[in-house]
Amino acid sequence: MEELKTQLAQVIRTYHQKGWSPATSTNYSFRNSGNPEVIVVSKSGIDKSVFTAEDFMEVDLQGEALPAYEGIRPSAETLIHCKLYELFPETMCIVHSHSVYSVLQSMKNQTAVELSGYEVLKGFEGIKTHETTVSVPVFNNTQDMPAFSTILEQEKDRLTVPAFIMRQHGVYAWGRNLFEAKRHLETAEYLFEADWKFSRK
Amino acid sequence: MEELKTQLAQVIRTYHQKGWSPATSTNYSFRNSGNPEVIVVSKSGIDKSVFTAEDFMEVDLQGEALPAYEGIRPSAETLIHCKLYELFPETMCIVHSHSVYSVLQSMKNQTAVELSGYEVLKGFEGIKTHETTVSVPVFNNTQDMPAFSTILEQEKDRLTVPAFIMRQHGVYAWGRNLFEAKRHLETAEYLFEADWKFSRK
Amino acid sequence: MEELKTQLAQVIRTYHQKGWSPATSTNYSFRNSGNPEVIVVSKSGIDKSVFTAEDFMEVDLQGEALPAYEGIRPSAETLIHCKLYELFPETMCIVHSHSVYSVLQSMKNQTAVELSGYEVLKGFEGIKTHETTVSVPVFNNTQDMPAFSTILEQEKDRLTVPAFIMRQHGVYAWGRNLFEAKRHLETAEYLFEADWKFSRK
Amino acid sequence: MEELKTQLAQVIRTYHQKGWSPATSTNYSFRNSGNPEVIVVSKSGIDKSVFTAEDFMEVDLQGEALPAYEGIRPSAETLIHCKLYELFPETMCIVHSHSVYSVLQSMKNQTAVELSGYEVLKGFEGIKTHETTVSVPVFNNTQDMPAFSTILEQEKDRLTVPAFIMRQHGVYAWGRNLFEAKRHLETAEYLFEADWKFSRK
Repeated sequence: MEELKTQLAQVIRTYHQKGWSPATSTNYSFRNSGNPEVIVVSKSGIDKSVFTAEDFMEVDLQGEALPAYEGIRPSAETLIHCKLYELFPETMCIVHSHSVYSVLQSMKNQTAVELSGYEVLKGFEGIKTHETTVSVPVFNNTQDMPAFSTILEQEKDRLTVPAFIMRQHGVYAWGRNLFEAKRHLETAEYLFEADWKFSRK
Repeated sequence: MEELKTQLAQVIRTYHQKGWSPATSTNYSFRNSGNPEVIVVSKSGIDKSVFTAEDFMEVDLQGEALPAYEGIRPSAETLIHCKLYELFPETMCIVHSHSVYSVLQSMKNQTAVELSGYEVLKGFEGIKTHETTVSVPVFNNTQDMPAFSTILEQEKDRLTVPAFIMRQHGVYAWGRNLFEAKRHLETAEYLFEADWKFSRK
Repeated sequence: MEELKTQLAQVIRTYHQKGWSPATSTNYSFRNSGNPEVIVVSKSGIDKSVFTAEDFMEVDLQGEALPAYEGIRPSAETLIHCKLYELFPETMCIVHSHSVYSVLQSMKNQTAVELSGYEVLKGFEGIKTHETTVSVPVFNNTQDMPAFSTILEQEKDRLTVPAFIMRQHGVYAWGRNLFEAKRHLETAEYLFEADWKFSRK
Repeated sequence: MEELKTQLAQVIRTYHQKGWSPATSTNYSFRNSGNPEVIVVSKSGIDKSVFTAEDFMEVDLQGEALPAYEGIRPSAETLIHCKLYELFPETMCIVHSHSVYSVLQSMKNQTAVELSGYEVLKGFEGIKTHETTVSVPVFNNTQDMPAFSTILEQEKDRLTVPAFIMRQHGVYAWGRNLFEAKRHLETAEYLFEADWKFSRK
């Protein structure tokens, strides 16, 4: 578990360098197959340029801090993580970005970003050919996390690839391990950038 | 204090890598709660790609070099720092950038950059929801620092978040510590970039 | 050979940082003059941000894993490498990118990207002056590798510089060693970016 | 001198990372006040991502290799360096880039890039206020170095700041030491980028 914390912390710092997690924004979590009732999630308010393995805490499946972490505030969006682990039980890692291109896409597209014909679409688990169209849903941003959890539950069928955008906020992506969650986020980010730039040709 | 110098110097080199402080441009300062009459400010003319803890000097609240630094020139814009510490007494750190997007925003917007609905707005202290509009003032650039200090004093009420733009020059941002000043600058930079790119959709 | 693996792995990680090889995408190979019947190629599915010398395997000129690597899957596009080594026997190294600008160029240009007058054109072997036009072919993307190999064979005469684009996919470039292959890819990427940005003036 | 080689080599690798010197392109030189008849110039054909202090050679003021370097090819553009040292005798260091924004500016502007009102203009030696317009000349690219040297001589009066653009090629900038040459190049690059982006608002 310590090794995974160290690996994810490294990924977080790299994402900060890319401009995907300005200052203290964005949040991340994982859980272990040995104890899937425990979610290891980033603490609130940590500068992502210096995020380390020490900056994680543990919560239960309802997002409540475990006794060892009592009084420490998890990320405000921890409930989104809880809901994704519930809706997609195979999920073991969730990553997030505030990338500029996902924000731009969400300001241009009301309900979803449609992506067609790109080779990199195959970075999404289950997509076996570029000759397809993938739809990444865009949901309205809100600070009401229980309400947003309900939206996720209601719109689950639209989550045909493991990623969505919160409008003017950023991307969530997930997978069965850090490797897969990372691949899904980088796939989404690449496609949002290429598609945005092409739309302005 | 030495530790803070080292931390801020690291931040400065990182900002140079991002293109926010080309060559010798931009300036930075902090003060300590133990001795808030002393401002530790970047020396003039140092290449920011190699800025180290040695490249700070100390001035008093009027921007005059302390005896130990007599004959060494502080940044030409030290008076701006002095005025911000005076106007906002809780301020303990001030950072600056010459980012391209802040310059572009200031060429497009005469008096202020209006930013609405972005999640990252919450990076500004006191902003608790994305459902708001934040106005970052744009002031004309000038080399007359006493005159500019007067402008800051007169326009203080427009500084509703801890950041402003000098036209075709860059951003100043500040906070109660380096962590907060850094968060405010990165928040402003992110928003200026996203908003600029969207305006050209 | 170990040294070359280490050098190419370093190049791959750098390309990932540039955004040319998101997540596990792209593939790379080289062969040695001592044993040109063996192609050392990147294994399938490795995250390029952490690619190391251990992540190569060996295949024969038909793309079949050598006995020592039996059961390990080479990159899905290994046949493209095999065909390029066959068509251009001097080739000893092949590199690949999924860069955004090559994808954009392939969405704008049906059959080729025409590049004129740039100094950097001389980065392509055999181009001795900027006062020329170079044509980089664009081929349709496909997952049918034998079919694509046939296309390469049929269109060989259009490969007047050692690079081509697969549509919405990326660039292949090659050379007589890693140094030259790398120069050809970076030359192509630079030109695609400059040319794209200029076309949107 | 060894220290200066090491410093300039570091600058060159950094410029490569910025995308200013793709593959083997661009060239650099300096000379020492102790022996200003000797120009230390980058060897031809070195990949700038791995350029080291070993990759310099020495030429005389006519660009001919000194005996210790006989048979080694200096950069093809060494004569440009020689002419600049002749025209501006205070010059002790010359840097070069193939940046995309300088190329774009040279495709848009026939004779010069005019830059007005930017704070960063003060990065050019002798510019004391942002309330000015600086003109950076654009010369046609050519491979005829003696002819280009003549152009530089004829157009010397237009070199009011220590930088010019060769069309579709890149920027040369110079100064009384590495620090100043670097400042001039970074100043020019920043201004070309900001100005290009603004022109497409």
